[in-house]
Amino acid sequence: MTQLADKDRPAGTPADLEPILQALRAVVGAGNVFAGEAIEARHRGDITGAFKGRPSVVVRPASTEEVSAVVKIAAAARLPITPYGGGTGLVGGGVAAPGGLVLAMERMNRIVEIDQTALTMTVEAGCVLQVAQEAAEAEGLILPLDLGARGSATIGGNIGANAGGMRVLRWGMMRDMVLGLEVVLADGTIVSALTKVLKDNAGYHWKQLFIGAEGTLGVVTRAVLRLRPAPTTSQTAIIALAGFEAATRFLRESQARLSGRLSTFELMWPDFFDVLTEAQAYKRPRPLPGGAPLYALIEALGDDVQRDGEVFEQILAQAMEDGLVLDAVVAASERQRLDLFAVRDELGEAFAALRPIIVFDVSMALADMPRFIAASDAGIRADFPDARILHYGHAGDGNLHLTVSVGAISHEIEHKVQTAVYTAVRAVGGSVSAEHGIGLERLDFIGWTRTPQELALMRTLKTALDPHNLMNPGKVLPPA
Amino acid sequence: MTQLADKDRPAGTPADLEPILQALRAVVGAGNVFAGEAIEARHRGDITGAFKGRPSVVVRPASTEEVSAVVKIAAAARLPITPYGGGTGLVGGGVAAPGGLVLAMERMNRIVEIDQTALTMTVEAGCVLQVAQEAAEAEGLILPLDLGARGSATIGGNIGANAGGMRVLRWGMMRDMVLGLEVVLADGTIVSALTKVLKDNAGYHWKQLFIGAEGTLGVVTRAVLRLRPAPTTSQTAIIALAGFEAATRFLRESQARLSGRLSTFELMWPDFFDVLTEAQAYKRPRPLPGGAPLYALIEALGDDVQRDGEVFEQILAQAMEDGLVLDAVVAASERQRLDLFAVRDELGEAFAALRPIIVFDVSMALADMPRFIAASDAGIRADFPDARILHYGHAGDGNLHLTVSVGAISHEIEHKVQTAVYTAVRAVGGSVSAEHGIGLERLDFIGWTRTPQELALMRTLKTALDPHNLMNPGKVLPPA
Repeated sequence: MTQLADKDRPAGTPADLEPILQALRAVVGAGNVFAGEAIEARHRGDITGAFKGRPSVVVRPASTEEVSAVVKIAAAARLPITPYGGGTGLVGGGVAAPGGLVLAMERMNRIVEIDQTALTMTVEAGCVLQVAQEAAEAEGLILPLDLGARGSATIGGNIGANAGGMRVLRWGMMRDMVLGLEVVLADGTIVSALTKVLKDNAGYHWKQLFIGAEGTLGVVTRAVLRLRPAPTTSQTAIIALAGFEAATRFLRESQARLSGRLSTFELMWPDFFDVLTEAQAYKRPRPLPGGAPLYALIEALGDDVQRDGEVFEQILAQAMEDGLVLDAVVAASERQRLDLFAVRDELGEAFAALRPIIVFDVSMALADMPRFIAASDAGIRADFPDARILHYGHAGDGNLHLTVSVGAISHEIEHKVQTAVYTAVRAVGGSVSAEHGIGLERLDFIGWTRTPQELALMRTLKTALDPHNLMNPGKVLPPA
Repeated sequence: MTQLADKDRPAGTPADLEPILQALRAVVGAGNVFAGEAIEARHRGDITGAFKGRPSVVVRPASTEEVSAVVKIAAAARLPITPYGGGTGLVGGGVAAPGGLVLAMERMNRIVEIDQTALTMTVEAGCVLQVAQEAAEAEGLILPLDLGARGSATIGGNIGANAGGMRVLRWGMMRDMVLGLEVVLADGTIVSALTKVLKDNAGYHWKQLFIGAEGTLGVVTRAVLRLRPAPTTSQTAIIALAGFEAATRFLRESQARLSGRLSTFELMWPDFFDVLTEAQAYKRPRPLPGGAPLYALIEALGDDVQRDGEVFEQILAQAMEDGLVLDAVVAASERQRLDLFAVRDELGEAFAALRPIIVFDVSMALADMPRFIAASDAGIRADFPDARILHYGHAGDGNLHLTVSVGAISHEIEHKVQTAVYTAVRAVGGSVSAEHGIGLERLDFIGWTRTPQELALMRTLKTALDPHNLMNPGKVLPPA
């Protein structure tokens, strides 16, 4: 009944899918194998709408053992395998290979354990980030990873993407939170090291390879994440800055004064700040008037109820006296705190008016940002004089987001804009992707900030771990 | 003239070494190629005295290009290559393979650049850690890695070992400081990514594989390290604790109260504390009287001159009121600070009296330490009732050092003691090495805390990167 007419069969689909489906059903149950019309729309495309996938089958395993068995069946049939988490990737990394198998991880969504003494969470890959965050909070702990897609992105996706977000400045990226890891290799082998130890120099740190590999080296099934005691105070502000130089000086000084408590430092150029605050004006007042050269959302998290607020205010007052900060609004309640974060974080409505958009997540040394912005803006405007370009990002990490709107886009137009931006990022020795990864979207550009030797080394690793190129093929590495 | 009689030729030496030596001399100059009698003692053994190497040649390259050329010559002759840094490794990882080539990195010792805006240091692999630390300090910055061997260990060795030390609690291990990395692969290919960006998700994070690989996957030649603004205040104390439970509660509470400023938390059991303070009594008074269940050296680093000392004292006072801390001595000067550190750090004299010793650097979840100690002590004493066992370590990281003295040792005796300790560490799900690595010493034991699947995966990576097994062969991975 799932036998498709030849004309309906996605490219790459095995001629006789039925025996494979039967084998898969025997592993995960008939209710967790989907083919043909039964495949949901989300498994045929991606959140950006830029990429279409035509998988021949979607499978929902419930355990690591089931993942292993599914991978073995797929490997025997030479069926490409693409893991699917929350579907929030921005570069097409979760889009199925033609005719391939989608491994939808949503049933593997359990929090296996929170260890209050080791300060760890053992969790399955399909668990939604926010669910994991809230489980940690309920125990007086935090899982520090935080990003806009928290409500749908999964832990497995966060690991595959080495997710960043709003608090990298203090706690690092997903890589820095992964203590133990379990993966299923391309031949179905389960490699499980669900350790809680913070330090382990016994042999190669193989887990590091799978973090940020976008599912191309194996399937992440479970992880042990490092938690921290939850801070008990927060100081949050949006500030207007005198300029870029002032911003970097203030960042440096506040980092020093706050001794590592500074958790968030999100720069917003006026192009971004104005568009966001205007789009949100119907529901919340502008936090600060426009007209400043630069804005930042900053947050410090601490534990000294008596002192933290006072120190934060002092630092702001000093920075205003020094002329670094022109104006500031400090949250006086949790409600106000969330309102301030929304200015930076609630992109949906503001971006809707700009669509179609082309988004970037480049990185560089912080001091190079003005030079980069001038060059990339000029490059874009050479072809698109009326381009709208919003600049914002995790400045403390050297990570700049650009959102570019040039009207209707084609592949060629997008490529032109990308070329302008990546030419500028290459010139400052930066990276074409700080956070989002390569996926399908940046295949043409990974070589702009990685050398041929680096790409050759990556291919060597890929071939060693996945000799038949079955794990999320076509992503990350362009054809040699 | 360097033609050796057959009987003098170390095992594995090519029958005709001379053409190889000539080729090497052409690359690095005749003054930087050593063979036969000209090979220094340090390149024939290691600091522990446990391992003997019999290299056929020692080469001192001056640049990455020279390393590459040397590796190509060695690879063509199938000569094993062992990188040699400061020679401070404790597990034989830097001991030459029989008849192999030692790549002595001492001429590659330059600090290439300190970037005050990016907060980075670009440095050659042969630079001594302390030299790098002092160069950072001279610029108002710190390279946070710190360990006892700072005066001779090199940056390349620190990277190869993924060094830990005294401040991992706050700033992580060497891995967390490496932004850019340059390596020479087994075929002589230079892979150079001397980037200063903090975030780079463009493709596989290949650099992670070489960090902690003990030179078995390639030669580290240069790196870009992340620096931090130097803290301006320090609060240092040795404290007596009411017990292990009290120690973990105090660690957790002080970490929270100090909001990440806590940089060092070194637990010392009385067995260690008494031996160290007695051995040092002739030159400095005991910081605290004996008799307490547990001691700790703790340090917080900060930037609030008015407030930091006061907060630290408050935390200690509260902990004494709560019965967690029984007694404390706080450093009132830099001189006193160094004296307190020496109690933990100056091991030489105290250990001399115990030699021969067997040292361990196991890790586990902190809460498991008492159970581990009871089991490993019992295991050792079953065979060696009079064993002296000192317990100390980077408790905040779950990293426990054991120094064991059982009288004269043979390989068999050492193996018995190791078996007792590693049996106990396996039982708590820990690691046989938190810091020192596997080298030659732990080849028999890596499989005790790594699964067969992990070892197979490591072998796959090794074979992919070093198909002829020339890069520091015989280390890390036991024969399959």
